[in-house]
Amino acid sequence: MFEPWLIAPISAAISILAGLYFYYYVNKQDSGTERMREISGAIKEGANAFLKKEYKILAIFVIVVGMLIGLLLPQPVWTNAKPIQNLSLALAYFFGAFCSALAGYFGMDIATKANAKAAYAARGGLNKAFPIGFRGGAVMGLAVVGFSLLGISVVYGITGMPADMGVPPILAFSFGASGLALFAKAGGGIFTKTADISADLVGKVELGIPEDDPRNPAVIADNVGDNVGDVAGMGADLADSYIASTAAVMILGVALGFVEIALVFAGLGIIASIIGAFTLRTGVKGNPGKALNMGTYATCIVFLAMAFVASYHLKYPLQLWGAAVVGLTAGIVIGTTSDYFTSEDKKPVMKTAEAAKTGAATTIITGFSYGLQSVVPPLIGIGVASAIAYYLCAPLGAGYALFGISLAALGMLSIVGMIISNDAYGPIVDNSRGIAEQAGLGDEVIRITDELDAAGNTAKAITKGFAIGAAGLTVIALLATFQEIAAKAGHPVVFDVMNPIVLMGALIGVGMPALFSALLMLGVGRNAERMIAEIRRQFKEIPGLREGKEGVKPDYAKCVDIATTGALRELLPASVITLVVTLVVGFVGGVQALGGYLVGSIFSGLLLALLMSNAGGLWDNAKKYIETGVHGGKGSDAHKAAVVGDTVGDPFKDTAGPSLNTMITVMSLVSSLFAALIVQYNLLGILGIN
Amino acid sequence: MFEPWLIAPISAAISILAGLYFYYYVNKQDSGTERMREISGAIKEGANAFLKKEYKILAIFVIVVGMLIGLLLPQPVWTNAKPIQNLSLALAYFFGAFCSALAGYFGMDIATKANAKAAYAARGGLNKAFPIGFRGGAVMGLAVVGFSLLGISVVYGITGMPADMGVPPILAFSFGASGLALFAKAGGGIFTKTADISADLVGKVELGIPEDDPRNPAVIADNVGDNVGDVAGMGADLADSYIASTAAVMILGVALGFVEIALVFAGLGIIASIIGAFTLRTGVKGNPGKALNMGTYATCIVFLAMAFVASYHLKYPLQLWGAAVVGLTAGIVIGTTSDYFTSEDKKPVMKTAEAAKTGAATTIITGFSYGLQSVVPPLIGIGVASAIAYYLCAPLGAGYALFGISLAALGMLSIVGMIISNDAYGPIVDNSRGIAEQAGLGDEVIRITDELDAAGNTAKAITKGFAIGAAGLTVIALLATFQEIAAKAGHPVVFDVMNPIVLMGALIGVGMPALFSALLMLGVGRNAERMIAEIRRQFKEIPGLREGKEGVKPDYAKCVDIATTGALRELLPASVITLVVTLVVGFVGGVQALGGYLVGSIFSGLLLALLMSNAGGLWDNAKKYIETGVHGGKGSDAHKAAVVGDTVGDPFKDTAGPSLNTMITVMSLVSSLFAALIVQYNLLGILGIN
Repeated sequence: MFEPWLIAPISAAISILAGLYFYYYVNKQDSGTERMREISGAIKEGANAFLKKEYKILAIFVIVVGMLIGLLLPQPVWTNAKPIQNLSLALAYFFGAFCSALAGYFGMDIATKANAKAAYAARGGLNKAFPIGFRGGAVMGLAVVGFSLLGISVVYGITGMPADMGVPPILAFSFGASGLALFAKAGGGIFTKTADISADLVGKVELGIPEDDPRNPAVIADNVGDNVGDVAGMGADLADSYIASTAAVMILGVALGFVEIALVFAGLGIIASIIGAFTLRTGVKGNPGKALNMGTYATCIVFLAMAFVASYHLKYPLQLWGAAVVGLTAGIVIGTTSDYFTSEDKKPVMKTAEAAKTGAATTIITGFSYGLQSVVPPLIGIGVASAIAYYLCAPLGAGYALFGISLAALGMLSIVGMIISNDAYGPIVDNSRGIAEQAGLGDEVIRITDELDAAGNTAKAITKGFAIGAAGLTVIALLATFQEIAAKAGHPVVFDVMNPIVLMGALIGVGMPALFSALLMLGVGRNAERMIAEIRRQFKEIPGLREGKEGVKPDYAKCVDIATTGALRELLPASVITLVVTLVVGFVGGVQALGGYLVGSIFSGLLLALLMSNAGGLWDNAKKYIETGVHGGKGSDAHKAAVVGDTVGDPFKDTAGPSLNTMITVMSLVSSLFAALIVQYNLLGILGIN
Repeated sequence: MFEPWLIAPISAAISILAGLYFYYYVNKQDSGTERMREISGAIKEGANAFLKKEYKILAIFVIVVGMLIGLLLPQPVWTNAKPIQNLSLALAYFFGAFCSALAGYFGMDIATKANAKAAYAARGGLNKAFPIGFRGGAVMGLAVVGFSLLGISVVYGITGMPADMGVPPILAFSFGASGLALFAKAGGGIFTKTADISADLVGKVELGIPEDDPRNPAVIADNVGDNVGDVAGMGADLADSYIASTAAVMILGVALGFVEIALVFAGLGIIASIIGAFTLRTGVKGNPGKALNMGTYATCIVFLAMAFVASYHLKYPLQLWGAAVVGLTAGIVIGTTSDYFTSEDKKPVMKTAEAAKTGAATTIITGFSYGLQSVVPPLIGIGVASAIAYYLCAPLGAGYALFGISLAALGMLSIVGMIISNDAYGPIVDNSRGIAEQAGLGDEVIRITDELDAAGNTAKAITKGFAIGAAGLTVIALLATFQEIAAKAGHPVVFDVMNPIVLMGALIGVGMPALFSALLMLGVGRNAERMIAEIRRQFKEIPGLREGKEGVKPDYAKCVDIATTGALRELLPASVITLVVTLVVGFVGGVQALGGYLVGSIFSGLLLALLMSNAGGLWDNAKKYIETGVHGGKGSDAHKAAVVGDTVGDPFKDTAGPSLNTMITVMSLVSSLFAALIVQYNLLGILGIN
């Protein structure tokens, strides 16, 4: 008989095929003029150079961590009667890292091709260019979910959920993917903002040349950054929540006999995303922003309908489906509230733009204040969704309540293929605009690419809300997994903050996301300093560059190289500290301390992630709003103040903010992985205190 | 026989007398020239006008809340067989609010006198001026602790700790004081930053006239702001933690038979502070900053020695004394780490100043990043102190462990008389500088007042760290009180975040400090807009004002009036929301939800309070560092960028940041007050969900 869970690998394979089809579709489009090919080639080359260097360093890291896992988990290999278990975990970990790296590479490859093609197609109008941009993004979206779910299916197909292991291999797979995602996000985030800030500060502010001007030595690096930061980074972020929430459902489902519902729902979600991606094209009637959002809603409805039918036939309790509905609805609601705080036609952005009239300081204070306000609705949304899912499933019996929360996370993430597609669309058309400007395709084409870009921003507001909401629900589900694994290992964890060990863990946990963001942002600052010096040098030393003399070209590669080397140097401390502190807290304070630590880091991580992402988006749009001509428009004092806000917002929204999601996911996964070992060996336990 | 606890009212009375002595000492000093008297008089008048208006509005609020307490607590009066209990709680509440208001008034009165006197004495050198500044501050410090502890003693002497009431009157007293403190801090914080930002933006930035220039119509309002924001506000902040931690120790001590240790330790702390204040004067040898810090250390040692002797004779277990030592040490350590992040000669400030060379945006990003880093050591400090105090006292028996944490909080706050004195010194000498500038006392006097001001900043770093650390430990102690009261009322609370009701409460709690800060800062923004318009109007419409024509004066009173009206209008929403949301969470979700809510708000409140206070202090000092001549000094582009940072930091460090301490204390107190009632009446309980 056909096993229902096989829908997961099958739809994952279809997803990869659909991705290939889109790849082929985009690839056969015209790349445009010689100059465009040249620019696009330079971006591609820069992105490849970065990825190659990054993967080389990460390979070392992954091998070291993988060997540690192989040595220590599920039990130290020298005490384990079945050392094959250690090997399984290590292999699952490597496989997870590999899948994540592959998906990142794939998406980036097509994104760096689609940009020029969409720009060239824009000569024929919006409706010609839009499908290229969207389908380019869909390659990333479908590849990411395809590889992720295929990987999960393979690990599950081979190892199942072995009851005697303590740590299921699926968790090691998830950690492999998330660990790589953390580096990809942090590294990409530092790269992209280094280039962006440096290019703007020297180009726009000091020399007064326009954005994307080919004379600017950092312009290619800036475009590369959009790809390595936004395409690869955002994809990795959502993929890691996706894999982690699937793993959480599977682990919590073991005791209930509902392991495979995760795979069934995830598989159906992929099919819904594919349908959404294919039908989107015909929906375009001049407003690409609406088309993207309509595609998302359609995907939701298709998924929920299919999941309902499947639940009925497979005799899943309807409450489990209900939990998924709750999660998905919460995702949409959270996305809509971030939209309110970052949209040009809503009060927060307009008030911030108004504050820009009195200078940079009031711009920052006002935007930051609205950013603080913006955290409230998503937090309540996550809280309400968890509570509803919990009480919905609680009547099914012991263990179902927390299972319900994990299903809400899974439900929210089911349509992630579509979400990533929308998201990757943004940097592709942003690049198209850059290429159109650099290749001199004329004002009309730039106007169209501007419109495509604006649509990307509209979609982005919802997808960002989704990403943070999904991470929030996922880490709560992972808390439940952590509790489950620790309890099985003989040490039940109660997250009671009046236990001083839990409290201490929690207070350290509260500090970690702050420390992590600080390290990333200071890294951007240091890196930007190096790059600014280089840009100034080139303008000074290359004769004719500033004046735009025919045939004079800046040394783009040098800037790409600085951004690459710097990003890799700066990402290591933050990422390594995340892992090391987590393990130190665990092996010193035991699972109680580690439980508190996770709770503290989740609270402060969500707070800071929402604050930074939304404040950053808000400042960006306040600047754009002024550029439409209000409060004096471009070049006015208000505009200059708004540019300061936008620049502050850059590392907020594109480096620190979104990396925090991944950070708390990684912390949760590593804690669950090591929970059983920590129960056996921890300092306070050995000293008899805890 | 002499009852040991009577040391509290006796030393409180001595403290008030010592305060009167200092008052007399300061008052008999020369107020200087006619012009100085005039300026000082204007500041005094403005401060009085603000206080009068504020107290009028607060009186209405206090009466309404007091009546509600009288009606509802400890049980609704119509169900209570002993309605005298309701009356007792209402009266204790009124009394608490009254004591807080009185202390605020007293301190402000002397501060507005001491400023001119210290400025005039500065003509005779640093050593003449310093004692006047310090003793002016000490009036505030000694008055605040005197009135606070006398109030506590009176309430305790009359009502004791009645076992049958559920809610002890001492808690209502504490809530009265904290509630008033919240308004005083928020209102004063909005007032001071409205005036400061407006005066700077129009005066320094637009017109290029110096700080404290008498032509600036906002200059008096700015000086008034220092008094109503910093003197009254900071005093109220520490006083409310002080009262709350004393109340927590008394409540937790009931079951253990150790109610009066709180009063004994608090009384000894006051005596130590008085000794510290009296000996400080002789310690001045040219470096007032060191003198202030030495005074603090001396007070610590005297207190610990006396408390040790008292514990020995009164046969208190030595561990209880040990917990106080732990708390006090943590306070010093936390203060020292904030000092690192905000001192001109340390890396964070220097790096931020360097970042100012590349503009305002990098200044903000760098300072904000260090601000994020600065939260880690205090959080760990609070966690470690709680854990040590807990494990130190745990062997004494059940209930002692949490009692230990409350004693750590009390120990940290024992020397609060000295801390407030140091703190109030700052705005007094800041005002002296303003008066010296406006009255034209010459460069040498301004240099001396600058030096006095710098000493205030050095001391401030430590006192600020103290304030936040103390609030942190206090709210943890209050969590224990909340748990105790809820358990007695029949509903034990476990702060387990895997309970979805707790989780939802916690996520809402995480959002509250963010919302509160946002409302205050947006209030400052709106208020500053009104004031900026007025300043510009005066410069435009008053002939000769800009040029500084002899005899032409701006309308100072108008600016004071705008700041006053605006501050009172803006403070209400934030403060009322704090109380209302807390009660709504409780009466809807029950004590479990409320427990989670408190935990969430404590974590996010501490995070944001530390971030904002330290980032603000850091930007302030980065600007001052540049003004010493580095990176181009005053007037350079780096300086302009640093001014933006300083302006952003103003509402961070003086409005939102420090109000958060009080906010979480108020939330904790109101939760404890209503806990028993909430156990009986809450929506989820009635619906049978929780």
